[in-house]
Amino acid sequence: MAQVQKPSIPKGTRDFSPEQMAGRNYIFDTVKSVFKKFGYKPIETPSMENLSTLLGKYGEEGDKLLFKVLNSGDAFSKISVDDFQKLITYPADSSASGAEVAGAYAAAGAPSLNSNALSLKVCEKGLRYDLTVPFARYVVQHRNEITFPFKRYQIQPVWRADRPQKGRYREFYQCDVDVIGSRSLLNELELVQIVDQVFGIFGVNVCIKINNRKILAGLAEVMGFPEKLVEITIAMDKIDKIGLEAVKEEMLSQGVDEKGFSILEPVLTFSGTTEEKLSLISDVLKDSETGRKGVEELKTLFGYIAEANISQKVEVDLSLARGLNYYTGAIFEVKALDFAIGSICGGGRYDNLTGIFGLPDVSGVGISFGADRIYDVLSGLDKFPKEAIGGTKVLLSNMDEKSAGYLLPLASRLRSNGIGCELYPDQTKLKKQFEYAEKNRIPFLIIAGESEIQAQTVNIKNLETGEQTTLPITEVLSFFC
Amino acid sequence: MAQVQKPSIPKGTRDFSPEQMAGRNYIFDTVKSVFKKFGYKPIETPSMENLSTLLGKYGEEGDKLLFKVLNSGDAFSKISVDDFQKLITYPADSSASGAEVAGAYAAAGAPSLNSNALSLKVCEKGLRYDLTVPFARYVVQHRNEITFPFKRYQIQPVWRADRPQKGRYREFYQCDVDVIGSRSLLNELELVQIVDQVFGIFGVNVCIKINNRKILAGLAEVMGFPEKLVEITIAMDKIDKIGLEAVKEEMLSQGVDEKGFSILEPVLTFSGTTEEKLSLISDVLKDSETGRKGVEELKTLFGYIAEANISQKVEVDLSLARGLNYYTGAIFEVKALDFAIGSICGGGRYDNLTGIFGLPDVSGVGISFGADRIYDVLSGLDKFPKEAIGGTKVLLSNMDEKSAGYLLPLASRLRSNGIGCELYPDQTKLKKQFEYAEKNRIPFLIIAGESEIQAQTVNIKNLETGEQTTLPITEVLSFFC
Repeated sequence: MAQVQKPSIPKGTRDFSPEQMAGRNYIFDTVKSVFKKFGYKPIETPSMENLSTLLGKYGEEGDKLLFKVLNSGDAFSKISVDDFQKLITYPADSSASGAEVAGAYAAAGAPSLNSNALSLKVCEKGLRYDLTVPFARYVVQHRNEITFPFKRYQIQPVWRADRPQKGRYREFYQCDVDVIGSRSLLNELELVQIVDQVFGIFGVNVCIKINNRKILAGLAEVMGFPEKLVEITIAMDKIDKIGLEAVKEEMLSQGVDEKGFSILEPVLTFSGTTEEKLSLISDVLKDSETGRKGVEELKTLFGYIAEANISQKVEVDLSLARGLNYYTGAIFEVKALDFAIGSICGGGRYDNLTGIFGLPDVSGVGISFGADRIYDVLSGLDKFPKEAIGGTKVLLSNMDEKSAGYLLPLASRLRSNGIGCELYPDQTKLKKQFEYAEKNRIPFLIIAGESEIQAQTVNIKNLETGEQTTLPITEVLSFFC
Repeated sequence: MAQVQKPSIPKGTRDFSPEQMAGRNYIFDTVKSVFKKFGYKPIETPSMENLSTLLGKYGEEGDKLLFKVLNSGDAFSKISVDDFQKLITYPADSSASGAEVAGAYAAAGAPSLNSNALSLKVCEKGLRYDLTVPFARYVVQHRNEITFPFKRYQIQPVWRADRPQKGRYREFYQCDVDVIGSRSLLNELELVQIVDQVFGIFGVNVCIKINNRKILAGLAEVMGFPEKLVEITIAMDKIDKIGLEAVKEEMLSQGVDEKGFSILEPVLTFSGTTEEKLSLISDVLKDSETGRKGVEELKTLFGYIAEANISQKVEVDLSLARGLNYYTGAIFEVKALDFAIGSICGGGRYDNLTGIFGLPDVSGVGISFGADRIYDVLSGLDKFPKEAIGGTKVLLSNMDEKSAGYLLPLASRLRSNGIGCELYPDQTKLKKQFEYAEKNRIPFLIIAGESEIQAQTVNIKNLETGEQTTLPITEVLSFFC
């Protein structure tokens, strides 16, 4: 421990101060209390999953963003030097099979290492990328202990080796609520109710946008390009950012023709009530069985919503696509109305997420709350309640050994009655103790000097109003309760 | 997503079911509520720290137990093949400088890779090993935002590449409470009060054992082997496991002589009251300045404890040593009295933990609650309160579309009044819905068939007693409130 190090943390990660934690805990406690009221129960899964569980679930880009954990012990000593030599790509090979993994040095004409193959030889584990795949793995692994429908929530950090930038972190919390093992659209309603209640408590106006992946599949079908569903949804998903013309251009470049796009265009640009939208899309999709099924589901869900006394704005958004390919039914997105930020919740129904782990045909639906963005919204709109931040109510000053001894039993008595209080540990100037109270937003200071001890009283200062009272020590408790 | 995988998790890691989470949350919520009442505030630090922050802080053994995270991107492609070749140790070299890192293949006479050097070239980050070093790093990094004394608690997982075995995991939660920036022994008292209150709430009888590292240093001094303090404490620490004779043997083999040990022996074997112990040790250490200081501190602390109305057993344990070298003052250990398990809390005072990060002479003291062992104790002694597990109070049955529509508004009304309830999402046999309620320990079931709907009533079944009541739907709320 000789050399002095400048302390720092890895880029894209964060420390959370007590003030930030107070805000974050307010968010987590609020969503948890709502989840619970609807019968959802917590689970937790390990931070590290086997790489075989994670790889191939998030697309090629996702695989690259996985943080891999080096095998413990001498990770490299289990590979023979011979095997190592095989992982080197020499410049002469650059047109051969190893080329696609050539690294930085290959470009410079030097031999290079097959980084990906090597990393898989020395890493068996990775940090979880989201909570959905671990949840699917959990459900399959514990299928015999679980009573379906299984309603779970999970609030844990996830890790992505994304390029760090404003509002994008390499470690962040996800806050997921899912029900699995039930196809009923009442589950979709329940998620809408949960979102409604959570943002009601937060005092934030939001718009809950809903679409259905079967409608998107139906659209691709009636456009004449059912095989281009993924390309079409990816392009559609950008409409808010790049506008209609650019979306059209992208689709045409992907092979969609003018005629096909002309069927989609009125759907994307239409604005009207939920009923008008449902009637339009119902008409456009009349020849697609999948499409009709999607419209039917959306109608049923909006029927439930109409009866359920939802306070927040809920609307059909026929351009809503959601990037993730595993969605097969309803899809959701939630936006804050009075604060400019991306979507703060997102989710949808998936029919076969557990299939890869050997349990096919288990349908589920879920939604994820974006804690970081919600924090920014609440902070930007000044919606954190004061009580969420508050901690200690009373600081007992420490003048000298005798004064501390006089106040110690009072501290215990206050705490037993639920009042957070601290006895300042050091015998320092009162000024410093005042400052401590101020900086920690402690509203009351109790002082007991020689004369107070003699009279068996204390002096109570309200640091917000400046008021002072002298009270018998036996009456302090009732002063605060 | 074609191939089916058998789901599993890395060895030494765990999934937590809703039942386990309920128990764990009860533990965390309880300690948090006590920490808060004493004015401690939460912080969180990133799961990944720079390896430079972690390495060299936990001894050689600890370094080996760090989980390293592979650099993102093409980790290996940034190393030239030339550099790689230099990391290979050939058998002829085995007596040369590379030998101490030779791996499995070297033994077989084949060339091997310098695993440790290589891993440091491709890993800059590691998973945190405990919460103490990240806390020290946090304090130094944020010294200008912090008001000292800084009272923080931190509840987060840590990772160790230990060999997994019963009760030892590779990922587990630590639950630390520390105050830094104050030398007052009132802080030590406060930690004792916190332990007392926490286990009081749990209803578990414990013994809080206290010693002081200055006493141990004084003992090494009067034994004549001040330079062997580490060896002496390591041997002493084993007395409960291996007995006095084996401890003596170990010390002699480490170079302590018979005469030296004869000074220590009466201290290790003495049993008596706190006063008797303090008087004995005071006498033994009368010629050591450090030792006298340690005795003084212990006397002051036990003086505070005597005044503080502590309910649990607190005792001086002169053989208590604690493995960690950074402790410099009081050291604590807590054991459950009615359940055989190792220590369930441990901690102590450290005078210079922040020094390595460039902030010397900041004294702190803290204690860590072992959540996993406390879980085992509460579970073994059947001390989890029933309410901790409970969730949903009422299940509303789903007979058909009409019945669900009739009960939906009731569900919302119950929830608005704080009663957790669920509407069963699928229209299935009532038997299945009964089973769901039973398995999820939901105590009440509400049924509304054709006749109830007509009469605007519901049927309430108490699943614990078997009782049934029919009530007007407008009176259900008051039935539960």
